[in-house]
Amino acid sequence: MQVAIPIFPRFTALDAVGPYEVIQRLPDVEPVFVAEQRGEVRTENGFLGMVADATFAEVPAPDVVIVPGGFGSRALLEENPLLAWLRAVHPGTRYTTSVCTGALLLAAAGLLDGLTATTHWGAVDVLQELGAVPVHQRVVEHLDRRIITAAGVSSGIDMAIRLVALLEDDLAARATQVFIEYDPEPPFDAGHPSKVGDDVMARVAEYRNARR
Amino acid sequence: MQVAIPIFPRFTALDAVGPYEVIQRLPDVEPVFVAEQRGEVRTENGFLGMVADATFAEVPAPDVVIVPGGFGSRALLEENPLLAWLRAVHPGTRYTTSVCTGALLLAAAGLLDGLTATTHWGAVDVLQELGAVPVHQRVVEHLDRRIITAAGVSSGIDMAIRLVALLEDDLAARATQVFIEYDPEPPFDAGHPSKVGDDVMARVAEYRNARR
Repeated sequence: MQVAIPIFPRFTALDAVGPYEVIQRLPDVEPVFVAEQRGEVRTENGFLGMVADATFAEVPAPDVVIVPGGFGSRALLEENPLLAWLRAVHPGTRYTTSVCTGALLLAAAGLLDGLTATTHWGAVDVLQELGAVPVHQRVVEHLDRRIITAAGVSSGIDMAIRLVALLEDDLAARATQVFIEYDPEPPFDAGHPSKVGDDVMARVAEYRNARR
Repeated sequence: MQVAIPIFPRFTALDAVGPYEVIQRLPDVEPVFVAEQRGEVRTENGFLGMVADATFAEVPAPDVVIVPGGFGSRALLEENPLLAWLRAVHPGTRYTTSVCTGALLLAAAGLLDGLTATTHWGAVDVLQELGAVPVHQRVVEHLDRRIITAAGVSSGIDMAIRLVALLEDDLAARATQVFIEYDPEPPFDAGHPSKVGDDVMARVAEYRNARR
């Protein structure tokens, strides 16, 4: 089972690596990082290079697609090879999924028209402009359409465990969860803007502008 | 503030990328992936290449060290350049930390002698053999020694948010948590062997042996 993870300049590393780490535990899964060209792709703020091992042309029929987001997704909303590849491969996938602003790319490819979907809290407006119906939910599944979207960054871990349950069974999903010891204990209850005050959001804006 | 993340063949991607994604949000942090040699390092099962941008020699005085684990850590418990580097830089760090079996490397470097520490549930015996006192806890802090260890794989995210609180303040920590939308909703309550049955652990063993 081939699981393709497309990457692009300024993607968010954890969007891709969270689901990757879950799904690569399945012995019959072959994950592949794919991009317009083979080679190094730098993540969001340039501090980390990850390697694409295949071009889009070399991965014409993946069984599963997981699209990460990142600041760089905003530069890919007009026609480009990634969107063309998403449109071309989606009819043959078992599941086409996104994490964070990866949903914007699914939407820009026309795969979310009129569908409820989720994304990073900071991208809800753009998701709507692109034709989807944003909902505040950690994971949104349209199993009849074989489309799953996950919220911001870390939500890809939750999504991927659910994906394993769909691809294999609950036992497999629980096994991957034990394997990565996903027994979260966030030190704060601060995982969404609805849970924090203006002081925290001011700090978020400050950090965001510093590294946009 | 330089945050060094040493990587080595067959490290676990999420061990490194979880904390990286949290800490890189701070505008005054410069994360750097470091290895014996610059260039691509393949993770656990070989499916992902991540790039080390600096050699150990080029990072002689990091402010923070985050050591990931992975199957490859078992090959590094005898004297080697990574252990020598850990010993050399630790006296100058603000915090020296580990995720998963990265704790084995801290222990092998002599930094955990007689200290309570945590690691991946599958490596508790080895951690003890290496002179630490394993405890079942998601994050173990020795602030007087400037040492923090985190449990398996995904626990690095919890640890890194706490690390931001120590390095900056609670507001900063909450801001990073909102940023990565870390509001976990695991689809199962199956994050540790103590929470699952023999059927799940048999599946874990099967997956583990398939890709050891």
